[in-house]
Amino acid sequence: MNPPRGMRDILPADKARRERVLSVIRDRYRAHGFDEIETPALEEYSRLHAGVGGDNEKLAYNVLRRGLGGDDIERIGVAIGQAADNMAQLSDLGLRYDLTVPLARFYASNRGQLPGVFRAIQIGPVWRAERPQKGRYRQFMQCDIDIMGDDSARAEAELMVASLDALDALGLSGASVRINDRRVLDWMLDSFGFRADERPGVLITIDKLDKVGPDGIVAELREREATPAAVDALEAFLRRPLTMEYNPYGERQIRKALPENAPDDLVAHLVGIGEAVAAGSASAAESIDATPLVFDPFLVRGMGYYTGTIFELAHPSVGYSLGGGGRYDGMIGRFLGQDVPAVGFSLGFERLVDLVEFTADADSQAVVLVHDADVPVSELAAHKAAVLRSFRGAGRVRLERRVKNFKGLLERSAADGYTAFATVSAGAEPGALELKPLS
Amino acid sequence: MNPPRGMRDILPADKARRERVLSVIRDRYRAHGFDEIETPALEEYSRLHAGVGGDNEKLAYNVLRRGLGGDDIERIGVAIGQAADNMAQLSDLGLRYDLTVPLARFYASNRGQLPGVFRAIQIGPVWRAERPQKGRYRQFMQCDIDIMGDDSARAEAELMVASLDALDALGLSGASVRINDRRVLDWMLDSFGFRADERPGVLITIDKLDKVGPDGIVAELREREATPAAVDALEAFLRRPLTMEYNPYGERQIRKALPENAPDDLVAHLVGIGEAVAAGSASAAESIDATPLVFDPFLVRGMGYYTGTIFELAHPSVGYSLGGGGRYDGMIGRFLGQDVPAVGFSLGFERLVDLVEFTADADSQAVVLVHDADVPVSELAAHKAAVLRSFRGAGRVRLERRVKNFKGLLERSAADGYTAFATVSAGAEPGALELKPLS
Repeated sequence: MNPPRGMRDILPADKARRERVLSVIRDRYRAHGFDEIETPALEEYSRLHAGVGGDNEKLAYNVLRRGLGGDDIERIGVAIGQAADNMAQLSDLGLRYDLTVPLARFYASNRGQLPGVFRAIQIGPVWRAERPQKGRYRQFMQCDIDIMGDDSARAEAELMVASLDALDALGLSGASVRINDRRVLDWMLDSFGFRADERPGVLITIDKLDKVGPDGIVAELREREATPAAVDALEAFLRRPLTMEYNPYGERQIRKALPENAPDDLVAHLVGIGEAVAAGSASAAESIDATPLVFDPFLVRGMGYYTGTIFELAHPSVGYSLGGGGRYDGMIGRFLGQDVPAVGFSLGFERLVDLVEFTADADSQAVVLVHDADVPVSELAAHKAAVLRSFRGAGRVRLERRVKNFKGLLERSAADGYTAFATVSAGAEPGALELKPLS
Repeated sequence: MNPPRGMRDILPADKARRERVLSVIRDRYRAHGFDEIETPALEEYSRLHAGVGGDNEKLAYNVLRRGLGGDDIERIGVAIGQAADNMAQLSDLGLRYDLTVPLARFYASNRGQLPGVFRAIQIGPVWRAERPQKGRYRQFMQCDIDIMGDDSARAEAELMVASLDALDALGLSGASVRINDRRVLDWMLDSFGFRADERPGVLITIDKLDKVGPDGIVAELREREATPAAVDALEAFLRRPLTMEYNPYGERQIRKALPENAPDDLVAHLVGIGEAVAAGSASAAESIDATPLVFDPFLVRGMGYYTGTIFELAHPSVGYSLGGGGRYDGMIGRFLGQDVPAVGFSLGFERLVDLVEFTADADSQAVVLVHDADVPVSELAAHKAAVLRSFRGAGRVRLERRVKNFKGLLERSAADGYTAFATVSAGAEPGALELKPLS
């Protein structure tokens, strides 16, 4: 009698906490000029399997076409046996596995009604049929902001400033953003001597640097028979006597972290983001030295659709990423037939919500009315209404029948955020109850 | 390039309005002691098709099992051709078509962690593969409150008072609730002489009273060959010289609207609800005469799972129902193996949201910064940060590049809720922009 495998019910205390975190995030993103939109949970099968969703496409939940009979299904089974892409005969829709593919579709659908530069907030569940494991769910919330129609460093900077501001508002100050650029990675691999056709595979290996270290990377590339001279060049670069401390962030530091002669325009874009983040940060640390950015030339990020800047959000309290994103200038063109620059940032809501420490709810007008079983229904209703009226539109009132474990009842009420209680006997006058603190 | 058939994208202005309405409803329900919970969008196929979901079961979107190959599908197609209930071999999960079946499952799953009387708020989308038509969508929001573990009239009254309070807070005062009881209907049909086995069919016909009138009802029952003497008795009752005005609400009026000798306990339950609603109404109209209840002995409501009180929310501004609900004391037992009394109220959110008139957003700190193309990215970031800082955590700021249609840009900004603007030129000092009203 449980929820489906890998999914979960959210109980009151947890739900209240989640809604509160979402409300803070939503408010801060709106403050920065972003507007919330919503798309359906379902998208057409063909769009979810158009090759832009990367590995997530394989994890999609596919929805059965309505109205198919046994004969239809038998025939389709034969067709799928011949070519797996006949699956679309059986499934016309699927549950979204991210909010980016639906956003690109949304932008293509509604472009005429959107401003030239469109800043979107999306908050909603996504579904992935992953192998269930601790802390990973098959339905989870995503919390994305995206900017479409702006190819300048301003867009990246706005995403970062707004997200860092949201983290501050949640009490998670001191976050930083690791940043790189897919074009920088491509140039770097080219400069080492990797052929264009082997670079995607090399990136998949490099993505494991945090886990396996330089030795593991080099060993894997040798085993994969990547161009030997290029692997040697990469190895020499990884072993160069440079501390990994790239802070402070700026042109000199970025160039020092890369092979020589990195392209000026790419470096300038990275430097521009740093300047704008410094100037725009809420704490008014108007110097690039204070930018909470860290350049990491080996940051890869898995998604195949990234075309430029990529970034990940880090916080000193945890070893894992709290979010990330990047530029995907090509994706909207897949749907619209015309390229539109786009860049997005996704907060790892499920991880964030566990980190946030809220002080107790400041709502002091939360009262539990404990009543004996013999109090008439209409008297209870009158007591509840009188207390609610006294709160003038704020506060909360809950009725509880007296139970043997009175202390337990009061403790549970306090855990639910209630701060006072009163006992109600038959015949008591509404509005004249004595409130006692729950503590 | 549109959303899936029968589904829709929600654009910024509409989304902001929806979130605002939801926030008011959530706050008022919380004020009345309800707690929000969340269940997954997917439930197991067998639970969604257990016979408790009524006609909605046929409208469920079913999710394909993962990992099936063409051979499996072919074999399952043959099995389904032999017996349709083999469909569960093809589909293990489905999207919920309401929030009531998942709530019953949730209660059975989590009962040990819930209070004896549990008041739940559920706000979330549901999916039904209905024939698309104007104003009806295949994904839509439901907004339910339910009370589990209380079989007294207090539960119904709490649902009604809280929902009427939420409507008041949305500016929709003057709503009323039509009320009846499935047991009253059953007794009434019995008293006319309908056999127990024909009563479910008779109820389906009576449910059309609003549409086809007494003549239509009688004609349809004769055509269906219902017990002739019973149809005659029903016809005589429908044609009795009684005005349909049942207000004011009370025992005398309820008895007058029914055949003679209605069972005392059922009438007392209905009267008790009225007394508690009168005593509990936020406006403190502490007289049953002022109860916003209307007894309607021919109210049926379609769902087969109702076992007692049923009700519908009406508002003078519209001819259709704005919500409704009822008692379903048997459903949790289907999942838990032990009956738990339960009663729920579902607000018709998609209808409500169109009726609510919000006065313009009171947020006067919403500023658009219109800039020329040559203003450096870091200057723009500094301007935005300075204005946001001046708002001390409130307010909103959006950057807009100057376009030829400057007036259009300002109009669109005003429509998005922004109230002031400033123009930004290169080299201007942050914090010294002149704000002008957008009007």
